[in-house]
Amino acid sequence: MSVMVNAPLGPENALDLLVSLVSDDLRQVNETIIRRMHSPVVLIPKLASHIIAAGGKRLRPVLTLASARLCGYAGEGRHVMLATCIEFIHTATLLHDDVVDESALRRGKPSANVLWGNKASVLVGDFLFSRAFELMVEDGHLPVLAILSRASSVIAEGEVLQLLTANDTDTTEETYLEVIRSKTAALFAAASRLGPMVAGRPPEEEAAMEAYGLNLGMAFQLVDDVLDYSARQEKLGKTIGDDFREGKITLPVILGVAAADATERTFWRRTLEDLDQNEDDLPRALDLLQKHDCLEETLRRAHAYGDTARTALQSFPDSPWRRALLDVVTFCIERAY
Amino acid sequence: MSVMVNAPLGPENALDLLVSLVSDDLRQVNETIIRRMHSPVVLIPKLASHIIAAGGKRLRPVLTLASARLCGYAGEGRHVMLATCIEFIHTATLLHDDVVDESALRRGKPSANVLWGNKASVLVGDFLFSRAFELMVEDGHLPVLAILSRASSVIAEGEVLQLLTANDTDTTEETYLEVIRSKTAALFAAASRLGPMVAGRPPEEEAAMEAYGLNLGMAFQLVDDVLDYSARQEKLGKTIGDDFREGKITLPVILGVAAADATERTFWRRTLEDLDQNEDDLPRALDLLQKHDCLEETLRRAHAYGDTARTALQSFPDSPWRRALLDVVTFCIERAY
Repeated sequence: MSVMVNAPLGPENALDLLVSLVSDDLRQVNETIIRRMHSPVVLIPKLASHIIAAGGKRLRPVLTLASARLCGYAGEGRHVMLATCIEFIHTATLLHDDVVDESALRRGKPSANVLWGNKASVLVGDFLFSRAFELMVEDGHLPVLAILSRASSVIAEGEVLQLLTANDTDTTEETYLEVIRSKTAALFAAASRLGPMVAGRPPEEEAAMEAYGLNLGMAFQLVDDVLDYSARQEKLGKTIGDDFREGKITLPVILGVAAADATERTFWRRTLEDLDQNEDDLPRALDLLQKHDCLEETLRRAHAYGDTARTALQSFPDSPWRRALLDVVTFCIERAY
Repeated sequence: MSVMVNAPLGPENALDLLVSLVSDDLRQVNETIIRRMHSPVVLIPKLASHIIAAGGKRLRPVLTLASARLCGYAGEGRHVMLATCIEFIHTATLLHDDVVDESALRRGKPSANVLWGNKASVLVGDFLFSRAFELMVEDGHLPVLAILSRASSVIAEGEVLQLLTANDTDTTEETYLEVIRSKTAALFAAASRLGPMVAGRPPEEEAAMEAYGLNLGMAFQLVDDVLDYSARQEKLGKTIGDDFREGKITLPVILGVAAADATERTFWRRTLEDLDQNEDDLPRALDLLQKHDCLEETLRRAHAYGDTARTALQSFPDSPWRRALLDVVTFCIERAY
């Protein structure tokens, strides 16, 4: 596998570089987020800003901004508007996912549903989702609405499919990949495709940017799933083993189950299917994943998706945006280490 | 207040009459619902059909179909498509509302979240909501998208506002009316307005049908709130006192609190704010509402909204649809008795 890194830049700061390239646009996105999540019902901006302002990397809206500039978009407004939509949809998904997963921490702060309850999280998510569609309607381009409404229902399908695979150690790698393609990669793909769309570029460029986003999203989620079993995770202010405790089936576990002997299989069934866990079980799970090389193997898949993402950018001429988008792929994978 | 009833028809079957007038269209809506809630993730149509097929009256999509015909729409497809959107948005709201209210029964059958859990209800709601937007995009008219995306965020605002008023016996009538205008009447208004929109009628007709739907929706919700404290409710297969047990603040209670002496006020605080309730409390609440004429007074407001809804139809020439839409107002109010 090839890893492209620009000479003076370690991959650690590739996202910061990309962000700096679109910093004026991103500032407008942040302003638009604040302005457009306003509601006379004050709990809405209060709860929404808790999660939106919680220090997320804004990776998805940055993809929209950068892909627009990469494709020569010279306007001021549409990419900002649509990047805001992307962040609203993402935030709505997080809010509903918090309810769903009963996860106690998100980005190191107490999750919204712990602070305000499940009810408010669901409803504020609904508000942000609706508001995203209002913004798209203001943008007024039906092809954009088609992409984002389709992405939204695919995300929901992916979340439901993930729910069905929870606690099922018979889940295949194929099903798992379908889950993450829908629940995560679809929004990366849509976010990236919006760039050539607002720039009025031909279908091939839309397809190339969509492929970039889709494969970046796959790599990103695989790394996320590895991080949940990785010491690296604690440095990010997140707890380790959330997926394990919930019995969530991710690729490391699928590979672990596939390589398991009879005793190990019983262990996975007890802990992930029956959710019958004691304090020794997470360390044991980590040992088993280590023993069968599952985290490394998952990262190898992430690298392969990353390579495909980078290849998708080949048809674009060299530019600071192209270089930064290439490096962001590396950054998204290297954060696992 | 005036109550218009066509001679051979008791108000009991006014909705059935309206439904029969649009029966071909409604059959197409039902087929479109089945076809468009399809997903390779089989839990989605399974859960969605549970709630969609649960014998709901399809009142909201029928409003779209009837208002389109009232306004002279002669086409076959758009009103069916948009009526389906309305039902999908309504169903998504019900699914999220079930999570929110932990209500054990909906339309006499176990609610979706009891059968499949909160997670699935939230996510299938998200799917239906996204699918509604996909259908609107296929319809391809931005003004329609503007109306429905706006209605969706207003509904979410109303639901959050309702959440904030829960267990707060200081809630004013004004706030309560704002809640039901947003969470219920806004969708009735949008559903009704779609008729003149697809028929290409002038703005005055859109405004008239929107006023019809809005005021019908207000009356409908007020009657719903009365029914929760009414013996009539049990005939509809619903439990009585759900709102009371949840500490939901509705107009009957607001009027009861306003008329309460000190002892009664203590009672409302204990039961609705502290949710400290025993088995004698619901009967006592019913007595107090009776004593202060709160249910009758709420129904008087419903009648007033009903009158306004009927007045909004005055500018339309006489037709079977106009007559049926007028009678449906009466039906929605009379179901309280």
